[in-house]
Amino acid sequence: MNVAFVIYNNMTALDFIGAYDPVTRLKTMAFMPDLTWEICAISDSVSDSAGLKFTPTRVNEPLQGFDLVIVPGGVTALVYQLTQDPAFISWLQTARSCPLIASVCTGSLLLGAAGFLSNKKATTHPNAFKELAEFCSHVVDQRVVDEGNIITARGVTASIDLGLYLCERLAGHAVKEKIRRQMDYQTAP
Amino acid sequence: MNVAFVIYNNMTALDFIGAYDPVTRLKTMAFMPDLTWEICAISDSVSDSAGLKFTPTRVNEPLQGFDLVIVPGGVTALVYQLTQDPAFISWLQTARSCPLIASVCTGSLLLGAAGFLSNKKATTHPNAFKELAEFCSHVVDQRVVDEGNIITARGVTASIDLGLYLCERLAGHAVKEKIRRQMDYQTAP
Repeated sequence: MNVAFVIYNNMTALDFIGAYDPVTRLKTMAFMPDLTWEICAISDSVSDSAGLKFTPTRVNEPLQGFDLVIVPGGVTALVYQLTQDPAFISWLQTARSCPLIASVCTGSLLLGAAGFLSNKKATTHPNAFKELAEFCSHVVDQRVVDEGNIITARGVTASIDLGLYLCERLAGHAVKEKIRRQMDYQTAP
Repeated sequence: MNVAFVIYNNMTALDFIGAYDPVTRLKTMAFMPDLTWEICAISDSVSDSAGLKFTPTRVNEPLQGFDLVIVPGGVTALVYQLTQDPAFISWLQTARSCPLIASVCTGSLLLGAAGFLSNKKATTHPNAFKELAEFCSHVVDQRVVDEGNIITARGVTASIDLGLYLCERLAGHAVKEKIRRQMDYQTAP
């Protein structure tokens, strides 16, 4: 199981880290010892929208071959711009054959621009429901929306709910509950 | 208002980012336009316990002069080791005169080792209540414990509650609520 955490300039750091924490605990808490992951970007250096620097472990390499790809969101206007950036969207499309693709917050606009939400229900930050509508069949106001091979989550802190949901899908309810308690997270998705 | 986000090797990324998100929104959402912050470490490069790299903006400089210092936690055993690291604890003690110092999760063990919890109530991750007991007057099982100039929060995801609590202390309830809604966070502290 190899996971790609996608990062990009002007993303929201918590969208990324809120899912990264529970998913990487599958390995660090020894539930899935063979789990591996990469931090994937198209640029050498990435800063979130408040200037915090992140360092990718893979730069501008195709996403195909990953078992799970997770895409964070950012401020709606900036992410909407990115939906119109051919270089970024082409790169995201290299995840086309990946069996499971997930997004947090306005990350679903990016999945939509890549064509991954055709005929799918999806969610995003409530402030971006209108923008998402042009990219999917139906906008759903739910914390996590599972369409089989595509999972979308609502705003920013829904990253934690998405991460825990993925833990449950990958390793079962009991493991998810152990991770949730270790994260001292009091509301389950 | 200048905030120091302390980072160090083997910390838990979500302890840091869960507070960083709401606190930096005080500026990015224009409630406190003059808010500034630095990412402070004693080493050039910092990795969390799962290998994610962070880049400090200030390396091995004293923490005095900051208005607020926030210290994340990590895996109890590793943080407990750090409580016995004279170089790290001496550096943390340079925050002694800062008017407000906060911690997430086992970050309170570090505040304790620096002497900041003498005669104070404090909290930490439930798994580390025993370790915290030797550093403070009384361990309290609460999400956020406010002792005036020292605020401690429980485990990992309590970072978000701490961050929102700080938003309320710094900018009032209405601002905190706007930030909480923007974060799509459904349970208030």
